[in-house]
Amino acid sequence: MHRYRSHTCGALTTAEVGEHVRLSGWCHRIRDHGGVLFIDLRDHYGLTQVVVDPDSPAFAAAEKARSEWVIRIDGKVRLRPEGTENPDLATGAVEIYATDLEVLGAAAELPLPVFGDTDYPEETRLKYRFLDLRREKLHKNIMTRGAIIDAMRARMKTQGFFEFQTPILTASSPEGARDFLVPSRLHPGTFYALPQAPQQYKQLIMMSGFDRYFQIAPCFRDEDPRADRLPGEFYQLDLEMSFVEQEDIFAAVEPVIRGVFEQFAQGKPVTQNWPRIPYAESLRKYGTDKPDLRNPLVMQDVSEHFRGSGFKVFARLLEVEKNEVWAIPAPKGGSRAFCDRMNAWAQGEGQPGLGYIMWREGNEGAGPLAKNIGPERTEAIRLQLGLSADDAAFFVAGDPAKFYKFAGSARTKVGEDLNLIDTERFELAWIVDFPFYEWSEDEKKIDFSHNPFSMPQGGLEALQTQDPLTIKAFQYDIACNGYEIASGGIRNHRPEAMVKAFELAGYDEATVIERFGGMYRAFQYGAPPHGGMAAGVDRIVMLLCGVSNLREISLFPMNQQALDLLMGAPNAATPKQLRELHIRPVPPSK
Amino acid sequence: MHRYRSHTCGALTTAEVGEHVRLSGWCHRIRDHGGVLFIDLRDHYGLTQVVVDPDSPAFAAAEKARSEWVIRIDGKVRLRPEGTENPDLATGAVEIYATDLEVLGAAAELPLPVFGDTDYPEETRLKYRFLDLRREKLHKNIMTRGAIIDAMRARMKTQGFFEFQTPILTASSPEGARDFLVPSRLHPGTFYALPQAPQQYKQLIMMSGFDRYFQIAPCFRDEDPRADRLPGEFYQLDLEMSFVEQEDIFAAVEPVIRGVFEQFAQGKPVTQNWPRIPYAESLRKYGTDKPDLRNPLVMQDVSEHFRGSGFKVFARLLEVEKNEVWAIPAPKGGSRAFCDRMNAWAQGEGQPGLGYIMWREGNEGAGPLAKNIGPERTEAIRLQLGLSADDAAFFVAGDPAKFYKFAGSARTKVGEDLNLIDTERFELAWIVDFPFYEWSEDEKKIDFSHNPFSMPQGGLEALQTQDPLTIKAFQYDIACNGYEIASGGIRNHRPEAMVKAFELAGYDEATVIERFGGMYRAFQYGAPPHGGMAAGVDRIVMLLCGVSNLREISLFPMNQQALDLLMGAPNAATPKQLRELHIRPVPPSK
Repeated sequence: MHRYRSHTCGALTTAEVGEHVRLSGWCHRIRDHGGVLFIDLRDHYGLTQVVVDPDSPAFAAAEKARSEWVIRIDGKVRLRPEGTENPDLATGAVEIYATDLEVLGAAAELPLPVFGDTDYPEETRLKYRFLDLRREKLHKNIMTRGAIIDAMRARMKTQGFFEFQTPILTASSPEGARDFLVPSRLHPGTFYALPQAPQQYKQLIMMSGFDRYFQIAPCFRDEDPRADRLPGEFYQLDLEMSFVEQEDIFAAVEPVIRGVFEQFAQGKPVTQNWPRIPYAESLRKYGTDKPDLRNPLVMQDVSEHFRGSGFKVFARLLEVEKNEVWAIPAPKGGSRAFCDRMNAWAQGEGQPGLGYIMWREGNEGAGPLAKNIGPERTEAIRLQLGLSADDAAFFVAGDPAKFYKFAGSARTKVGEDLNLIDTERFELAWIVDFPFYEWSEDEKKIDFSHNPFSMPQGGLEALQTQDPLTIKAFQYDIACNGYEIASGGIRNHRPEAMVKAFELAGYDEATVIERFGGMYRAFQYGAPPHGGMAAGVDRIVMLLCGVSNLREISLFPMNQQALDLLMGAPNAATPKQLRELHIRPVPPSK
Repeated sequence: MHRYRSHTCGALTTAEVGEHVRLSGWCHRIRDHGGVLFIDLRDHYGLTQVVVDPDSPAFAAAEKARSEWVIRIDGKVRLRPEGTENPDLATGAVEIYATDLEVLGAAAELPLPVFGDTDYPEETRLKYRFLDLRREKLHKNIMTRGAIIDAMRARMKTQGFFEFQTPILTASSPEGARDFLVPSRLHPGTFYALPQAPQQYKQLIMMSGFDRYFQIAPCFRDEDPRADRLPGEFYQLDLEMSFVEQEDIFAAVEPVIRGVFEQFAQGKPVTQNWPRIPYAESLRKYGTDKPDLRNPLVMQDVSEHFRGSGFKVFARLLEVEKNEVWAIPAPKGGSRAFCDRMNAWAQGEGQPGLGYIMWREGNEGAGPLAKNIGPERTEAIRLQLGLSADDAAFFVAGDPAKFYKFAGSARTKVGEDLNLIDTERFELAWIVDFPFYEWSEDEKKIDFSHNPFSMPQGGLEALQTQDPLTIKAFQYDIACNGYEIASGGIRNHRPEAMVKAFELAGYDEATVIERFGGMYRAFQYGAPPHGGMAAGVDRIVMLLCGVSNLREISLFPMNQQALDLLMGAPNAATPKQLRELHIRPVPPSK
């Protein structure tokens, strides 16, 4: 017989009754029923009930066993007594009467129980992650994560993509987020950087004549901690294709992502044909470029009804051309209590308040705003928004560029508070036509709004002739339930257009060459049209596991202070290491 | 029609004759046959011949096209004229008569041609890697690499393994090779390290209750450049299993690796049942722990024949107990010219020379050594080695611990020079029973010879009672054709044995806790018996692609000075970056 097991803890059924078997695993739960010990023995595959009574030679050893001890038991499989079967367990029809028990690994008093569902402080969970990971839910999430990645890989291959590995020790790239640096030992005073994404490499792969690249790629950003972001490293499903337009990327990616969602949605509906929402429209309707389309509310511009009206605050604002008034409809939100609550919430968000109109019996408008603008305008607003009795609408006014985020939050808040959001579904959409440039208030100049390597719509001609701030890019996101889960673009593969694009953002050709030398060089030697995308693996897993913290789907994450409490990283370097790397720590000035 | 192509350049056959098609790709080769242009259009999938004559509207544009320009062509598929078909090409029966041609990406004068097989300096190849990668052989190697990794993954899953991702930003680990360090921005004066291997994490995964882990894992070692090692990063097929003994690892791994070899060996034979060669035996027979078993030569201890013989140099050496004389048989090597050449080679290797005996007609021994020891001893040696007329044997004498490497080189040299090595096969073997400790001459103390986390054979008792230098470990390698392609061990999962093992190597418990805190902690809370292995992905791909340089199977490798010539890494950091990371470069003292 095998040294440790003839079966796993998830294998035994009535078919094995009467057999002598050997199992190894952890003591999940030990119960003493009148001198008879019941041990739920657990391994990766399942749980098996082990019975030891005082007549068994294993009894003395079993009495000593405690939770999470690793033991091997030998014994005979028998049917559980009638009425004690557990139909929820694969092995629930049988139990093992143990005749031998060996302790393979004892356990000290547990800082964190494995059995049970009690919540524990994050610090304890991360320091004893090996115990935390034995707990049913986290264990399952990690296995689901692996299965989702397998599914992504399989579906990408079905779409004709090949997997590549791009370097992890690479050059610091000046755009984007902050790089992690790695001091070079052989070249004093210089540094490698960990890739924020394999963006340049995947484009170089296309210029190297490969056709469809993908990678489950580790990416690194030295950003300040945030709730919806893992400190340090994360994974993306990275892809790139040659000889394609935007539609081809959509056609390749949509079935992969939709398929993965359907496979792991546990029956929840998944959007079949993804709407394509232009960036500007998404801001206008949802106040965000990652709308939660489970929320049925759509904002509308109702400026006309307030222009020159008796509500002087709005009327005066609208005298400035760029200003607008947007309405957030609130079906069945037409109670004073709810409207006051929204108003208070808005003040909590740093706003002066949130104007509203309620509609009563007979579609009669109510509230101070309705009074100020009068019944005709109130009725016109009601008709535009398609509202009726017991409904309300909230209004946000000013420069949309400044208020749209708040308006989006208000839309979310109304949707949540009125229970309009069907949480049991996945609503996916393409967000398209992102602006190529934006105005940087910090630097008082035009800058790339997203990826500088994207192709501007209209190409070189647009760059030469259009107001840069009106140029759109062939750049797109996938939004799901309020999260951006993927982002991509058709690349600018024409060197002269690339140089022009950077010039408009204030970088001359020499700077481009200095910063993106490899890419720039490659563009000179026959670059194919290409484009691609990157999807956030961790975020997709998080959505599909139904959790809201990335640490619930990550094996050994760091905490929010970017500390690895399990391994004790980061830690001090030895003087020898520092000498070899030609660096010296400089304590921050107080 | 699609903007860029209706077919790839590898797709068209006689079935499409008469169709109007669109293709995009690189101008692989352009020939002018009496005013008619023939363009071999290339993409990832293949080559298609495009014909443009002066009657075609595409002619003016085609005349301007040069090698490696990316173009789109429209045209009609037609049969190639009889006698001009190319059966070596999937599309070799047809050609396209082009009616339209668009330049998608022009190319400057090439620093490196794509067409043809000319060798180019490494610096050029790495700086223009995107051109190098378009060349047929390298392109194919990279695709094979991907296919091999896919096959590893598929076979691991068939064996019941699950894939996990372990952290890349982790803690510096004091054993093993040199770490790459990553300065922490949030915690001044401290550093993350890139993992040399996920060794501790994979053991922690087992202690977390998962059962069969694997990963195609990026690993990082800041080692000085060496021909058979990529600077910086490399990939390993990393695996770990719980509740196993050494035999279980072998049973799981052997089919995976053998299967991958068979799948990609292109018909070359692959060892079916891998021999298991104890480490000590491997040194004695082959002079190395990674023997090339395609070389049939087996060295033998022939000390007895020289003890007290007339060959005083050896006789005197053998008066010291640890000294031995080993023979390297050289079938059909019995010529003065060959023996002299071997002797000269040995001197070139820094040896005083290489003693030998030749056997003539009638199995008569010849050469100075034979004369000194006389015919009886010469005959006894011949019989022991199974040699006969025209054969020779070479002799190495002294302390085997000091000469075995040289003896192994001599065995290789004899095998190569006598053409005894069948290069058209893959010979695989397990090397087992590695010593647990070794004597460190540098530190004048006992140290771990390989992995400190391995289980010593005999467990705690052996550690308590045996001479440490005689203790073997449950540790094993896979050797293939003279390379170590994998290494592994059964782990020491018992905390008291772990502490004792480190104690014998001079580390007290406090040091163990300080250095391996996470692991040490995990051992206290129910650790299962476990073991695993790691196979070198790059090296396996190299063997299967039949190349001898890792840069021939790696996408964007650094050069031997650990410079990325394509991206320009490593490079200087900005003052802002250095300030944020709280470090200052210190120029090395001259």
